[in-house]
Amino acid sequence: MTTPAIICVAITGSLPTKAVNPAVPITVAEQVESTQAAFEAGATIVHAHVRNDDETPSSDPEKFARLKEGLDKRCPGMIVQFSTGGRSGAGQARGGMLPLKPDMASLSVGSNNFPTRVYENPPDLVDWLASEMKAHAVMPEIEAFDLSHIFQAARMHADGRLPARPYVQFVMGVKNAMPVDREVFEFYIHTVKRFFGEDAPWCAAGIGAEQITLNRWAAEAGGHLRT
Amino acid sequence: MTTPAIICVAITGSLPTKAVNPAVPITVAEQVESTQAAFEAGATIVHAHVRNDDETPSSDPEKFARLKEGLDKRCPGMIVQFSTGGRSGAGQARGGMLPLKPDMASLSVGSNNFPTRVYENPPDLVDWLASEMKAHAVMPEIEAFDLSHIFQAARMHADGRLPARPYVQFVMGVKNAMPVDREVFEFYIHTVKRFFGEDAPWCAAGIGAEQITLNRWAAEAGGHLRT
Ligand SMILES: [Zn+2]
Ligand SMILES: [Zn+2]
Ligand SMILES: [Zn+2]
Ligand SMILES: [Zn+2]
Repeated sequence: MTTPAIICVAITGSLPTKAVNPAVPITVAEQVESTQAAFEAGATIVHAHVRNDDETPSSDPEKFARLKEGLDKRCPGMIVQFSTGGRSGAGQARGGMLPLKPDMASLSVGSNNFPTRVYENPPDLVDWLASEMKAHAVMPEIEAFDLSHIFQAARMHADGRLPARPYVQFVMGVKNAMPVDREVFEFYIHTVKRFFGEDAPWCAAGIGAEQITLNRWAAEAGGHLRT
Repeated sequence: MTTPAIICVAITGSLPTKAVNPAVPITVAEQVESTQAAFEAGATIVHAHVRNDDETPSSDPEKFARLKEGLDKRCPGMIVQFSTGGRSGAGQARGGMLPLKPDMASLSVGSNNFPTRVYENPPDLVDWLASEMKAHAVMPEIEAFDLSHIFQAARMHADGRLPARPYVQFVMGVKNAMPVDREVFEFYIHTVKRFFGEDAPWCAAGIGAEQITLNRWAAEAGGHLRT
């Protein structure tokens, strides 16, 4: 296996604040600077959320527009992925930035529990987000928090809701959802290959202490890495 | 394998009405009669919802009490399982019948999508339902709509929230959740045995047209059957 691993850098999730980690980039200017450093260090994809000035999560398309403009200028060729995750907005506000035509956007296709609440992705919202991505030629990254989410992506691909072969990310280590587990990791890969072909790309994101473990497994198994 | 399969009869789900199926038992008297017929035909467990007079789902403890009284009298030795599912009530109302001490109650430990909505089982409600079952010595049947739900049951068993070894039911064929799939079915069984032992009991419920397929697989693989 000589293909170099693709590294996806997640600058600024939806949760950490400067009080927790002074290095977390909050403003768009800080995000562009931080992404450029990662790009120069070899990162291929940037997964981005935006924040309000008080550091709370935002889904403001205007902020996403400024971020994209900065990234296009400072990180030419980098793949820009915007989050449509549920922590940054409610309902269709989660997809208000899709007309900006980022290269990619995250897409949750099912619901699951989070540490203290339900991560809600109702079927009609999932279908609307997918249709917006289709309309604006945005490649979705399917966030697989559980096994059925890979099956849902396969159904949506089969019936045309996801026109291109989906790129699946396994999210493991979220409390009350799927833990970082080797057997599940292997079954996830097997299932992705079963539906999308032996050469289907996939990546893995470990939450919390076991992020390193999952990165190592993904690198060894030919997947992409999420930092 | 000579152990006879345990048959769990689901009289009256939360959805079908007499308009759809004139045979569906709605009143408590009809439910007792229908369960007795299944009991005499060999069913071991009855999984029960209750309904209002207008056939809408209910979680009224008074109705569950009359049902239990009738079943204890007419089906002596039958295992009575009450549903705490989310279609029949909201929040803690879903567990209001647990002080009646049925032998078993269904318990969803995660969230997932249903055909048109999110099936919401927030972590604090899951923990409250489990604590009520523990307090009243009710054996939970874990409703596994997805793989992570088996892992969640294992965590809850390990930390004492589920005192006894959980009895897991695989629910397959729900639109937008897990389909009826042979590979997943086998991985589910493997995972149950991994956490709860080679002799751990499990059952499988297929929704819709493939119910028969899943019953056949379960019978062949040594699981219990849900009608
Ligand atoms: Zn990724
Ligand atoms: Zn994200
Ligand atoms: Zn059962
Ligand atoms: Zn039920």
